[in-house]
Amino acid sequence: MGKKYRVGILGATGTVGQRFIQLLESHPQFEVSALAASDRSQGKTYGAACSWRLPGEMPEAVRGLKVGAPAPPMDCELVFSSLPGDIARETEESFARAGYAVISNSSALRMDEDVPLLIPEVNHEHLAQLDAQKASRSLDRGMIVTNPNCSTIMLALALAPLHARFGIEACVATTLQALSGAGYPGVASLDAADNVLPFIGGEEEKIETETLKILGRHEGGRIQPAPFKVSAQVHRVNVSDGHMAAVRVKLARPASQGELREAFASFTSLPQELKLHTAPRSPIIVRDEPDRPQPRLDRDAGRGMSVTVGRILADKVLDYRFVALSHNTVRGAAGAAILNAELLVATGRL
Amino acid sequence: MGKKYRVGILGATGTVGQRFIQLLESHPQFEVSALAASDRSQGKTYGAACSWRLPGEMPEAVRGLKVGAPAPPMDCELVFSSLPGDIARETEESFARAGYAVISNSSALRMDEDVPLLIPEVNHEHLAQLDAQKASRSLDRGMIVTNPNCSTIMLALALAPLHARFGIEACVATTLQALSGAGYPGVASLDAADNVLPFIGGEEEKIETETLKILGRHEGGRIQPAPFKVSAQVHRVNVSDGHMAAVRVKLARPASQGELREAFASFTSLPQELKLHTAPRSPIIVRDEPDRPQPRLDRDAGRGMSVTVGRILADKVLDYRFVALSHNTVRGAAGAAILNAELLVATGRL
Amino acid sequence: MGKKYRVGILGATGTVGQRFIQLLESHPQFEVSALAASDRSQGKTYGAACSWRLPGEMPEAVRGLKVGAPAPPMDCELVFSSLPGDIARETEESFARAGYAVISNSSALRMDEDVPLLIPEVNHEHLAQLDAQKASRSLDRGMIVTNPNCSTIMLALALAPLHARFGIEACVATTLQALSGAGYPGVASLDAADNVLPFIGGEEEKIETETLKILGRHEGGRIQPAPFKVSAQVHRVNVSDGHMAAVRVKLARPASQGELREAFASFTSLPQELKLHTAPRSPIIVRDEPDRPQPRLDRDAGRGMSVTVGRILADKVLDYRFVALSHNTVRGAAGAAILNAELLVATGRL
Amino acid sequence: MGKKYRVGILGATGTVGQRFIQLLESHPQFEVSALAASDRSQGKTYGAACSWRLPGEMPEAVRGLKVGAPAPPMDCELVFSSLPGDIARETEESFARAGYAVISNSSALRMDEDVPLLIPEVNHEHLAQLDAQKASRSLDRGMIVTNPNCSTIMLALALAPLHARFGIEACVATTLQALSGAGYPGVASLDAADNVLPFIGGEEEKIETETLKILGRHEGGRIQPAPFKVSAQVHRVNVSDGHMAAVRVKLARPASQGELREAFASFTSLPQELKLHTAPRSPIIVRDEPDRPQPRLDRDAGRGMSVTVGRILADKVLDYRFVALSHNTVRGAAGAAILNAELLVATGRL
Repeated sequence: MGKKYRVGILGATGTVGQRFIQLLESHPQFEVSALAASDRSQGKTYGAACSWRLPGEMPEAVRGLKVGAPAPPMDCELVFSSLPGDIARETEESFARAGYAVISNSSALRMDEDVPLLIPEVNHEHLAQLDAQKASRSLDRGMIVTNPNCSTIMLALALAPLHARFGIEACVATTLQALSGAGYPGVASLDAADNVLPFIGGEEEKIETETLKILGRHEGGRIQPAPFKVSAQVHRVNVSDGHMAAVRVKLARPASQGELREAFASFTSLPQELKLHTAPRSPIIVRDEPDRPQPRLDRDAGRGMSVTVGRILADKVLDYRFVALSHNTVRGAAGAAILNAELLVATGRL
Repeated sequence: MGKKYRVGILGATGTVGQRFIQLLESHPQFEVSALAASDRSQGKTYGAACSWRLPGEMPEAVRGLKVGAPAPPMDCELVFSSLPGDIARETEESFARAGYAVISNSSALRMDEDVPLLIPEVNHEHLAQLDAQKASRSLDRGMIVTNPNCSTIMLALALAPLHARFGIEACVATTLQALSGAGYPGVASLDAADNVLPFIGGEEEKIETETLKILGRHEGGRIQPAPFKVSAQVHRVNVSDGHMAAVRVKLARPASQGELREAFASFTSLPQELKLHTAPRSPIIVRDEPDRPQPRLDRDAGRGMSVTVGRILADKVLDYRFVALSHNTVRGAAGAAILNAELLVATGRL
Repeated sequence: MGKKYRVGILGATGTVGQRFIQLLESHPQFEVSALAASDRSQGKTYGAACSWRLPGEMPEAVRGLKVGAPAPPMDCELVFSSLPGDIARETEESFARAGYAVISNSSALRMDEDVPLLIPEVNHEHLAQLDAQKASRSLDRGMIVTNPNCSTIMLALALAPLHARFGIEACVATTLQALSGAGYPGVASLDAADNVLPFIGGEEEKIETETLKILGRHEGGRIQPAPFKVSAQVHRVNVSDGHMAAVRVKLARPASQGELREAFASFTSLPQELKLHTAPRSPIIVRDEPDRPQPRLDRDAGRGMSVTVGRILADKVLDYRFVALSHNTVRGAAGAAILNAELLVATGRL
Repeated sequence: MGKKYRVGILGATGTVGQRFIQLLESHPQFEVSALAASDRSQGKTYGAACSWRLPGEMPEAVRGLKVGAPAPPMDCELVFSSLPGDIARETEESFARAGYAVISNSSALRMDEDVPLLIPEVNHEHLAQLDAQKASRSLDRGMIVTNPNCSTIMLALALAPLHARFGIEACVATTLQALSGAGYPGVASLDAADNVLPFIGGEEEKIETETLKILGRHEGGRIQPAPFKVSAQVHRVNVSDGHMAAVRVKLARPASQGELREAFASFTSLPQELKLHTAPRSPIIVRDEPDRPQPRLDRDAGRGMSVTVGRILADKVLDYRFVALSHNTVRGAAGAAILNAELLVATGRL
């Protein structure tokens, strides 16, 4: 076991911050050495500042760490960030300027041209954009890498093998998203119980734009968004964890239902080759039962890092339809960022 | 107050049967005089046979009625039917042959060419098909009129004003359906809690075919299905009552978002003109708040008979998108059948 | 139809404030003429300030009313108050001093010796305490009347006929309380979904003390708490509306199970005699089915004003056990306060 | 690694049967070699017969096993039984007569005088009753050992250290039980959603009687039930897994709150000494936060085998109160039976 990177968590007391800490508890390459959160928590130990809301105990190793302000310097080499939108941009940029690698789950910088919006299985070649970033931001050792919105990750990962093989000409996605996606306290229980909310602020736009950047090509030092349209309608449903999307696609080249299934099931990529610690064996798991995927049964597939796809069928209006599901705070947030960091290490960029 | 028709309920102890009884409790034109259900209940009083599962008390008037077999003769002039698929066809046909008007919520006969699949606000002219039915089935006074599947009613009613004004060229609908749609005991609680089921047997096909029959034209003694495609992906969510659909439409003629909104909001039809007892003042209610409709807040709009539409927006792949919601056991089942019966009375067919 | 009192609502935008407005919509004696809420809402119309979260529309009559500060003068004769604990005492006392009748659902003043803690069916004679109040607070026309905590109302109402007939020597109550009891946003959905919370701040103490004041005797100008012990353990469960309590009682005098049942079922009191508008015909409804009461089926009994009691059985440790249920924002809050006001009117105190 | 016992599962396709298979997947002492279930499944492979409803995949090792009838002979040395009540007695007795050790989770034989009702941490000395059983049933190598009802296990385990140190004089328990306790399909979702059911057939009696047998003394070849009274009121709540009980106890000897806490927290017993594979390090985990235990956060403590206790407080009517929680299909069913079998092995009885 080689060197362990010392990592800091920005937004450490939040829902995603707690997932970072849980997933890093016995990580072979990273160890949590610094924590930052909002005013209210600063100066307290993590044990005192954080109301731990994941099943299982708060890891002993962080219990006594003092929570600091989200500002450099921090006692670490890289930071995982899950800051609220209003302070994310400025904070993350200041950490990058101060020489830290910033691995961010926040939305603020995702669509900046010089910032890779990374899903290691899908667009690892976008990391080349870090060279442009170094120049445009005059960075020394610092860098910023982001992961997509929780629903977008699932959608883009599921679309990736289809786009590569058959070309996607249009995509219509309707999501049924879990409560944990809104953080804590997030959605009021009176809005969730016996109900569906057909609205999540900014989410439809994120899915419609981020997906195209991720599936775009890195050419001539720029990322050219994929040349098709995405339509997203989003809903919050009464599920604790696990985002689902009902997806239709129009393809550029003809494909049989069996070819579609095979494209999903055989999909594997660089993280699997490199055997990255957090990479699932199968990025996409196909289930053939008529009533799968289901959040309760499938969200933890691949330790929360696999996307489960089912109900692959011909569609009456577009060409094919399917249903995708993944764990929104693992593959959709903390796990995504950690996989990004593992790729940076494995490719020598960290 | 004129004559009251004596009505029988087939499938009286089920979820929809109970709704029939509740909605007919103080109906000005119909009074429940006979009840039929499966073997297990026959010979008992309704009070003894039926475990009443709606809020409020079982109406006193039916408590002492004896439950009989679902076969003619029954002590009534017309029957409301909500029978399980396997016996519905034969039973309903036998009642029609015996001279009863059969107002059915069952799916068995909906797609038969000579059976009107009726939403009074949408295709009341399809009642003309009853003449063909009389001939093809050699009926005397008997007749069969059906209402659509619970999700289809909501969708077809919402599409009707758009189709009339702008022409629909394609429709993509993704549903989030309530538990009561599966009857009782229906969905197991372990499948519903903290979960979504992406499958309801036969439902996608029903939505994709019934919608086109309803929006079709009655020409030359036949119903020509509407000439466009419908794509449906359906989900069962953890909501007690209230089906929701996320809908995208492609239109034949250009329309502004405001024109769409106005087409929904101003929609009114024959049942409103005739002031049918169960007809809502507004068949479609438009809500402009960004987070509506919601099942808990909107399912009872128009005493459960209005469809609530919101989130009317331009769509990136088709032309427009919106979200529709209605009460699946009122407008989507028992209320739909009662409104059909009221139309038959008002138009002199009963 | 006589004079209508003009009433103000303090805390008008909250969960209970909305219930007040809903229940007063077509009240024969009260009409809402003034609204007050926190800073954020002041100066706006109610339509603009309030996100209406009850099924059905916000009543037209209040939509255009301007929301003011919760301080006298207000354009009304009496105020219904549902203010948060921290400002309730001072605000309600200032309204009383300014000559308003304050009918409060807040907890601040409930246990003050000179303040009636009123359930009209149980302790209407406690209104005599208003004479002491007038003196102790040097009030002119002003007065303060409170209703109990939402769980306490249900418990005290159910205990009242038992205490009157058999004497209660001890009571053990375990509650399963609905989400709406915590207001909005209240309980986070992540805490409610697939979960139970065994804690509600201050609730156990309120039940243990308020119950005894309510069941106490008004003697010599003072209220003597009932001379027995109450033990309360409380839980928040994933139910939108409807508090439930599993209750055991030890009785001073022997009673058969049938006598207990009869004591519940025959219970009726002054509000029923006076035919107060909001009074249910039966304050306590007994259900004999083995699986009742249930929140979904029984919370609206008596238009939300009846307590439903079931599972009356001998207990192995105390003498008897039963399960009680009532609507926590109707009988347990807004409806309780309105019934209190109706009693004040009917007894000439207003 | 020594010998592995070959085990059969009776009721293999049910909720508890699936848990048995999941928990035995990589068990060091037991391997599943035979499966039995009802008519419908017999003759099929387990993969074909069983709709797997636990998160994660059906273990590969059982997928191809043929499902047989629940009757001897079966290809195994001992059977884990989770049969429905109506056939459990006869079937389990026939297996014992045929020489099998029957480790049963069924309720049929639990209260038979010669059958140990075992919680290894609580009453391992009751295994001595197997000698009486051998005689009374003329058994050769066969034997029957049962584990208690899912709620009783939690209660009796929590009471054990208190009874040992302070003596219990009375116990009042009110449960909030999870949906999985009713098996599959079990509770209808319409009964579970937005609701509580205050009834579970036979459950209150089981808790009131089994607890006393478990805490009783084995004397003179008989088990003398513990000499106090238990009162149980039970409720089904909308939680997938994890039973909760609000408990009050009256003690024979005075104890401070700190002593109570210490008695819970320090409790450990023979399974911990013997380091049985399924035994948790701490049979009882004490949580001091005011809002714990919670099903979602605490049910998996000790890999589902620990009981979590919180809210230890003085009680107004009895002496003390607390809230207990445990996983109803692990510690409360399959895990309990497996721990029983491990104890039989470790003590040389198998």
